[in-house]
Amino acid sequence: MTSSIQDKLKDIVALAKRRGFVYPCSEIYGGFANSYSFGPYGALLKKNIKDAWWRTFTQLRSDMVGLDGPILLHPKVWEASGHVAGFHDALVDCKSCKSRFRADHLIENALHREVEGLPLSEVTAIIHDNKIPCPKCKAVDWTDARQFNLMFHTPLKKTKNGEEEEIAYLRPETAQAIFIDFKNIIDTMRKRVPFGVAQMGKAFRNEITPGNFIFRVIEFEQMEIEYFIPPTGWESHFEQWLATMKEWCRLIGLKEEKLKLYEHPQDKLSHYSKRTVDILYEFPFGWSELYGLAYRTDFDLKQHAEHSKTKILYTDPETQEKYVPHVIEPTFGVERTFLALLCQSYEEQTLGEGDVRTVLHLPPTLAPIKVAVFPLMRKDGLAEIADAIFKALSPHFQAEYDEGGAIGKRYRRQDEIGTPFCVTIDYQTKEDGTVTLRHRDSMKQERVHKDELLTVIKNLMQTG
Amino acid sequence: MTSSIQDKLKDIVALAKRRGFVYPCSEIYGGFANSYSFGPYGALLKKNIKDAWWRTFTQLRSDMVGLDGPILLHPKVWEASGHVAGFHDALVDCKSCKSRFRADHLIENALHREVEGLPLSEVTAIIHDNKIPCPKCKAVDWTDARQFNLMFHTPLKKTKNGEEEEIAYLRPETAQAIFIDFKNIIDTMRKRVPFGVAQMGKAFRNEITPGNFIFRVIEFEQMEIEYFIPPTGWESHFEQWLATMKEWCRLIGLKEEKLKLYEHPQDKLSHYSKRTVDILYEFPFGWSELYGLAYRTDFDLKQHAEHSKTKILYTDPETQEKYVPHVIEPTFGVERTFLALLCQSYEEQTLGEGDVRTVLHLPPTLAPIKVAVFPLMRKDGLAEIADAIFKALSPHFQAEYDEGGAIGKRYRRQDEIGTPFCVTIDYQTKEDGTVTLRHRDSMKQERVHKDELLTVIKNLMQTG
Repeated sequence: MTSSIQDKLKDIVALAKRRGFVYPCSEIYGGFANSYSFGPYGALLKKNIKDAWWRTFTQLRSDMVGLDGPILLHPKVWEASGHVAGFHDALVDCKSCKSRFRADHLIENALHREVEGLPLSEVTAIIHDNKIPCPKCKAVDWTDARQFNLMFHTPLKKTKNGEEEEIAYLRPETAQAIFIDFKNIIDTMRKRVPFGVAQMGKAFRNEITPGNFIFRVIEFEQMEIEYFIPPTGWESHFEQWLATMKEWCRLIGLKEEKLKLYEHPQDKLSHYSKRTVDILYEFPFGWSELYGLAYRTDFDLKQHAEHSKTKILYTDPETQEKYVPHVIEPTFGVERTFLALLCQSYEEQTLGEGDVRTVLHLPPTLAPIKVAVFPLMRKDGLAEIADAIFKALSPHFQAEYDEGGAIGKRYRRQDEIGTPFCVTIDYQTKEDGTVTLRHRDSMKQERVHKDELLTVIKNLMQTG
Repeated sequence: MTSSIQDKLKDIVALAKRRGFVYPCSEIYGGFANSYSFGPYGALLKKNIKDAWWRTFTQLRSDMVGLDGPILLHPKVWEASGHVAGFHDALVDCKSCKSRFRADHLIENALHREVEGLPLSEVTAIIHDNKIPCPKCKAVDWTDARQFNLMFHTPLKKTKNGEEEEIAYLRPETAQAIFIDFKNIIDTMRKRVPFGVAQMGKAFRNEITPGNFIFRVIEFEQMEIEYFIPPTGWESHFEQWLATMKEWCRLIGLKEEKLKLYEHPQDKLSHYSKRTVDILYEFPFGWSELYGLAYRTDFDLKQHAEHSKTKILYTDPETQEKYVPHVIEPTFGVERTFLALLCQSYEEQTLGEGDVRTVLHLPPTLAPIKVAVFPLMRKDGLAEIADAIFKALSPHFQAEYDEGGAIGKRYRRQDEIGTPFCVTIDYQTKEDGTVTLRHRDSMKQERVHKDELLTVIKNLMQTG
């Protein structure tokens, strides 16, 4: 059992690997670029997060629609958005060991000094004048700081004009696909401002900073909303969305004391934003950004109107007034939600001397497996009864059938996966039709008739 | 109304755009690379296809688990898989108009002759000797044929060794992520061969061939299964999977007469395959590959074991025999399923003189919207009743609220979206609590008490 906060992340990473939640990417090849693969239970947890988000923000609301745009968009999209010109990190290379670092991190760590916004020449001079050593090999032998764009890009074989090697960027955020389809959406859907467009999908950033497990990775999934509003009165929409985002945190079981808000200072706002608030979560490595809420004004729609030479206007059906809608943008990271949920729900319980139980107290709706079905023994027809119960439950819940090993070990394995309910079929089942229903959090066991299992579990799922 | 088969695709493309299913990608910028964006209803249809597939092939089966691996994998993965060396198209450029063509297509169209497997020099000679003109500008002035890899690739800023500009490929198929995680999966999950791993996700191919709408695109989603079996007896697993794939086609409503099998001849099999069968669908542009089933032998696992210098073996728990499992691979394309469903369900019905109704007869479980809720008028409290009904139904089904325009037009709009049920709230509702329930396919209307709506629609959804 561990007590230190730093060890907690290690324990979670170990559990995630051991129990099929998260594997290091391309591990047999020695790993790759701090990225990860979601194993069988991780894939389910991730899907449950995304499904819950989609349901909450599209299905249950009449003022929202969904969208599923491509990762590769027209390169001009990223000129209009400002990413080609401004989405950079200043990097320096150690000439001795060839390691590459972010210049701002190097200076911050060595001198505790912020360099945001300084020209490259000054950044280079600061590193040089202060003789900052390489964190890896201790040499003091740096290249000049150079700007590297954070967008990945790939050559395209074919273009409309037959030009060779035109470039396509891998989107660094999902938002732009919504802005460039805004005109199509208002032309084809019967939506009145205010309304929102929700999208889930992959985004990519060519980061060199190591990432605290899945917190910062080069390939990640975003769940983003662009909420279109009239040009005036953004403040109340902003407050409403902040409340809605907090409500979502409650819904997925993130505790209030682990959350706090960070208001971006006016002089550090992104070029498109008039107000940005981050929702921070207290991860084992400290308070870090979980979600973000930004008032993007009409910046993006105006930029795309200008760069594409297209009129992007909304006509108010009552007043016939034409205007460019403004935008409130709530952004949710899938991997960060996933990590926060693991951190929030992970517990090592000392049950007795030398007996530590590791359990994930995931909310039942998000747990990868809702119910695990075990025959006490494989023989004497118990496996057949268990299999029939698995088949009866699995159309309703993600269930799992497991017939190997001691029952106690099977329970503990499901505890580590976060499975809220286990069902054991034993010899009494053959006599009176009852099974043992075992609860994850309380470890209480009760006998339930197998014909009532579905109803009992359905009710338990609703009440948590 | 149209009758010709060719026009049918045009009509479907037009409907898909008009009704928010599929927009041309980056349309305001003049489009981009034959790719597409899924609008609000398209995003829902796509999600419903994927959810149905996931449920069918993972949730309902105890011999399958899921996986969610990255798009960017270690570059060596694609050396081991054979994609770096062999995943090529031979292309030629017209020196006059700078257009680029696939050499094999050029020769096939001009000379009706297959050139698969011929060396580049011969391909170049055939084009030259036969003076094949450019299909675009009619000039006869070609570059030599050159091999272009179909994989997109992007430079990576940071590698473990500090080398600059290492390359990452965008995966051209999802399968490899499963093979390289096979060892992690058997180490962490309690699965015995035979078992399968299912994965859904994006793949990318740098195609220059135009694509028949969403049939062939540079960015697409695959739903793939790698089913691991013992080294002997693959034939029966292959037949079983073929039957399972046909059953899936039935489940999503694809008619048997629109499907046929294509057995790849032995001399044209991919390097990894011993048998491949395609399931073809009769699209408006002809019989084309919808799904594929391949027996990949132990090719991939062996390649990865060799290239990664890792032992990849499965130990049979009964016999303790160690072996490299063989693989049956059923592959499903999301966009192709989507397109087949649109083609299958699209109908223009002549109801009376000058009255043509366009309707999508989508299976209710896949339809983007299950029930649309309309107040007859916005006034007299009807909108409030309708809104309450929307709120009562939407936790159970994807519903839509629409209060604008004549009821007849609102019905027709939902017909084009494929919505199986519409509910209208009128003045009688205020008197006796009943609403009109209107059925898409029969256009029949019946009065149902609003308190019974949920149960009635739930039952109708189950019976189709």
